Amino acid sequence: MKIYAVVMAGGVGSRFWPRSKEKTPKQLLKIFGENTMIQDTVKRLKGIVDDENIYIITNKIQKAGILTQLPYLPIENIIEEPFGRNTAACIGLASVIIQHKDPDAVTLVLPADHIIEGKKEFHDTLLEAAEFADRGRGIITIGIPPTRPETGYGYIQIDEVGVLDHIFKVLTFAEKPNYATAVRFVDAGDFFWNSGMFIWRTDVIIDEINTYMPELYEGLIKIKEAIGTSDFQSVLANVYGKLKKISIDYGIMEKSKKVYLIKGHFSWSDVGSWETVYELSSKDEDGNTKVGNIYTDMVVDSYIYSPDKFTAVIGLDNLIVINEDDALLICKRDKSQDVKKVVDYLKYNKITDHI
Amino acid sequence: MKIYAVVMAGGVGSRFWPRSKEKTPKQLLKIFGENTMIQDTVKRLKGIVDDENIYIITNKIQKAGILTQLPYLPIENIIEEPFGRNTAACIGLASVIIQHKDPDAVTLVLPADHIIEGKKEFHDTLLEAAEFADRGRGIITIGIPPTRPETGYGYIQIDEVGVLDHIFKVLTFAEKPNYATAVRFVDAGDFFWNSGMFIWRTDVIIDEINTYMPELYEGLIKIKEAIGTSDFQSVLANVYGKLKKISIDYGIMEKSKKVYLIKGHFSWSDVGSWETVYELSSKDEDGNTKVGNIYTDMVVDSYIYSPDKFTAVIGLDNLIVINEDDALLICKRDKSQDVKKVVDYLKYNKITDHI
Repeated sequence: MKIYAVVMAGGVGSRFWPRSKEKTPKQLLKIFGENTMIQDTVKRLKGIVDDENIYIITNKIQKAGILTQLPYLPIENIIEEPFGRNTAACIGLASVIIQHKDPDAVTLVLPADHIIEGKKEFHDTLLEAAEFADRGRGIITIGIPPTRPETGYGYIQIDEVGVLDHIFKVLTFAEKPNYATAVRFVDAGDFFWNSGMFIWRTDVIIDEINTYMPELYEGLIKIKEAIGTSDFQSVLANVYGKLKKISIDYGIMEKSKKVYLIKGHFSWSDVGSWETVYELSSKDEDGNTKVGNIYTDMVVDSYIYSPDKFTAVIGLDNLIVINEDDALLICKRDKSQDVKKVVDYLKYNKITDHI
Repeated sequence: MKIYAVVMAGGVGSRFWPRSKEKTPKQLLKIFGENTMIQDTVKRLKGIVDDENIYIITNKIQKAGILTQLPYLPIENIIEEPFGRNTAACIGLASVIIQHKDPDAVTLVLPADHIIEGKKEFHDTLLEAAEFADRGRGIITIGIPPTRPETGYGYIQIDEVGVLDHIFKVLTFAEKPNYATAVRFVDAGDFFWNSGMFIWRTDVIIDEINTYMPELYEGLIKIKEAIGTSDFQSVLANVYGKLKKISIDYGIMEKSKKVYLIKGHFSWSDVGSWETVYELSSKDEDGNTKVGNIYTDMVVDSYIYSPDKFTAVIGLDNLIVINEDDALLICKRDKSQDVKKVVDYLKYNKITDHI
């Protein structure tokens, strides 16, 4: 069994404004520690997937940054989508490229911008899922046992009579719930957070695309036939131009009868907002995380990032401060989801300098 | 009667950090509207004091900025103190210089960094006080009828049997009171805010200095004798080097038996903190004052100054934000007195870039 990985790195992460921009989206930032999120994501695969089998799927704007940050990956493994067409097309494209190279490939699909702690448990989960997938039994999603009634994640319900110890048949996918529903999900015990990470044999997912998304399949076959020819870029652009924006969850996972879930017994977060960054960061005795030369007086439970400018904060709590060269964000922590509205505002008003 | 003015511009205004710095203290900043505070202070004298009779007393660091901001004043009227020695020495120095020019001068002494609205009432007050002073009857301070139990000002108690309609004998000076005392002062009706503005004949204040501060008087006589000679700077430095730092209030006003008060029936503020700036600024319908390109969402009653950087504020109230090129302040409004502690911190840690 040879394992491949597809790291999806197309998003902008507008809730991470003003640090994330089109050219420097969330996955290309050093949000925790020394490495960028995509560097951590790739590094985390060491020991399971050889570098030559790691593919990054991204867009024109981010490609240069990715090449710089991951110089040890083969340049041809950085796949550039001509347009964003959501995850079904993205995964389909990567799948035909990998299948062209290795018809028996088992592929891990991972977002570039998640935080995972517990590398051994993560590897164990991936390997167990890969072995299951290699036997052609189905497509597997990683479900995280919920530790709180989080309303920011989708949930997956399993049939508790599992096929193997840790691998279960999926009953339903549930969108992000309201709080009461989330509490019910957590109490029920058979609901798991949808991590957006998948494992499958490449031929199996392509078959499922053929069954549930025949238009996409037809396009992917055209693309596959053009691989290695001088027409590849024009065929790719032509096919992509006609595709609908459909997620893999909506297009395949919610319909396929071959969907399984493996429980991920490692610490996981999709790092959805500055609030999550605050929660995951190490804090001083006042509950503050400070990056830069920061003076605080009567300040608690705050995340203050101002690496290039001396900053004084006085008499405030539960604050997010992100001071970038070109823009400043000051936000109450529980309003950190509203940061994306700033990006909407800037786009609407065509103030493109800061996005 | 010829009226002279001495504008005292030596302070740093550390509560206005990070806008006020040693080189650009509060009085040299455009805090309200088009003019700097010292420009407004000098402009406000137009019609009462001729430009050639307006003196600014300042220090080496601020002198260049003052010359630039007030180019229409005679250069020799910008008096540079070799060291800061508090207001008694400052006023004494200006007084001997003016007396050397005009032994009969009546002088107004004004801080450079106060806000006054109601120019006619201000002029009426100054003229009435100047006429009283010109008759050699005493030294006059302007008292502002208190409109609230402010704990940030000193108070002056009068003898309500006045000499003239608006001019009263002063009974006592009171330091900044606690809240309960301030309430009592305001209720009593015979206490007024100490504005720090004075009117006197120059020879009268010099006589009072002779009586109550003989060491200062002795030094001032040496300085006066050196005026116009090549020794002036060295004599000044030599005398100043030996002077104690004593305020005019402590050195003279609280002891002199010739102190009078004229009620100032105009709007006055010493603009003591960013909170005061917020209060005096015009606000939008959310109670916010915004300077710069500022996005706000769920933000009320805040002062947000960020002229050079796009700034987004979300879900906060009663905030002061001052974003300067080299430093950023974020402060709860009711903690704006604590801004001076940032300057103390920077000085103590010898981080002199930002002060």
